[in-house]
Amino acid sequence: MNNPTDQKLILITNDDGYTAQGIHELTQLMAPLGEVVVVAPDSARSGAGCSITPTLPVTLRLVEERGGVTVYSCSGTPVDCIKLATEQCVPRTPDLIVSGINHGENASVSLHYSGTMGAVIEGCIKGIPSIGYSLRTLSKECDFSPYREVVRRVAEQVLQHGLPELTCLNVNFPEVEVLKGTKVGRMARGLWTGEWAEANHPHGQQCYWLTGQFNNLEPEADDTDYWALDHGYAAVTPIHLDMTNHAYLNTLKQALE
Amino acid sequence: MNNPTDQKLILITNDDGYTAQGIHELTQLMAPLGEVVVVAPDSARSGAGCSITPTLPVTLRLVEERGGVTVYSCSGTPVDCIKLATEQCVPRTPDLIVSGINHGENASVSLHYSGTMGAVIEGCIKGIPSIGYSLRTLSKECDFSPYREVVRRVAEQVLQHGLPELTCLNVNFPEVEVLKGTKVGRMARGLWTGEWAEANHPHGQQCYWLTGQFNNLEPEADDTDYWALDHGYAAVTPIHLDMTNHAYLNTLKQALE
Repeated sequence: MNNPTDQKLILITNDDGYTAQGIHELTQLMAPLGEVVVVAPDSARSGAGCSITPTLPVTLRLVEERGGVTVYSCSGTPVDCIKLATEQCVPRTPDLIVSGINHGENASVSLHYSGTMGAVIEGCIKGIPSIGYSLRTLSKECDFSPYREVVRRVAEQVLQHGLPELTCLNVNFPEVEVLKGTKVGRMARGLWTGEWAEANHPHGQQCYWLTGQFNNLEPEADDTDYWALDHGYAAVTPIHLDMTNHAYLNTLKQALE
Repeated sequence: MNNPTDQKLILITNDDGYTAQGIHELTQLMAPLGEVVVVAPDSARSGAGCSITPTLPVTLRLVEERGGVTVYSCSGTPVDCIKLATEQCVPRTPDLIVSGINHGENASVSLHYSGTMGAVIEGCIKGIPSIGYSLRTLSKECDFSPYREVVRRVAEQVLQHGLPELTCLNVNFPEVEVLKGTKVGRMARGLWTGEWAEANHPHGQQCYWLTGQFNNLEPEADDTDYWALDHGYAAVTPIHLDMTNHAYLNTLKQALE
């Protein structure tokens, strides 16, 4: 096996499905870093967040094994893929989980809706260093060449140094020909608005398509993921899984206990 | 309208569907506090997390209007319900969003998978004080009487005092006849393991049911949501939406910028 880094094991998934261009790109970028296992949805699961499949069986299919890369497709969500992969597909605990490269950005609150990042959060829950990569485009055919160096560099950094406890990375790229650089930043405050477009329904039922615009509530703040994207930088945000508002615990104790 | 608290508007959803016992209980408990609009999934959406429906139209159906309570069912996820409700169903911005009462607990990392809490996170993204309620049971027929006083008290507290920015509440109940009290605590560290049971497949494909056991990684820590549940208390956890690991930003800047 062509595996220069002492047999590191890298698990790859996404939410666009195992045939998407972004996951092929990510697989090619990771293959030189170790043994690669891909376990990805059998078709697109955009907007899957951290959803799981508790009410139906989930199927797993070996697609191919070639040159140190094994590919499975799965009928479940991205989180299901990580759960299945770690219990049923990998020969040992992966050294790294990478998810993406998503066709569409997942910065700010879009993190919460993102299947790409759902898989990353699941990897992190399992104690495995995990990174999500997303590109600000909705095109299914992209030129990923401007982003390759950063994808590799972030993965190598994490393989070498790990990540703090309960922490994973959310990496987003702007759609540019040349990146200005990389910015580490926090999640911007924002929300989606104007989210529903009326749809026709053959029997006159109320019916809507989800759409909308993202509103960055702090466009001037230059320390956010959105600012970095808007200014041509790759945005890297460390995400912590303990969502407790620790600063509010004592006030709430006084009110409720 | 029977509305003693100056026409407060309360939006209710869940992930068990609009016919579930838990949402009927919650509706009855909220009705004395204001005008109530229920927008809930048309059937169960357990494990929906923060998932959304970007690829299919979502339908909305007025089920009934009676005594200050309006009920809609929706073909989408719990997050879709909040997104649709706030744009299409309510006469003004709600003063409070409540979700549940879920049949099944959503403490520790189960928060991430929870449709009940997905709706709460969405309400919080929209700047509306939001609370999720869940009960440690999988039974569809429950006696909710031991929990009514805490459900009401937490809702009244939030209606009166609001919540800090980007903060919502995750309230979980143990299955007991009498609560020992209420504990405000942080998310316990833990994970689900042994998550897949092999399923039969008619054509021999690899096929699994999601199952598993939750492992609390810090069972001795008495300041967590899990400890409270395991010891007979209602567990209240304030959840913050900014998942940035702020303490790690500078280290990561030095490594990657």
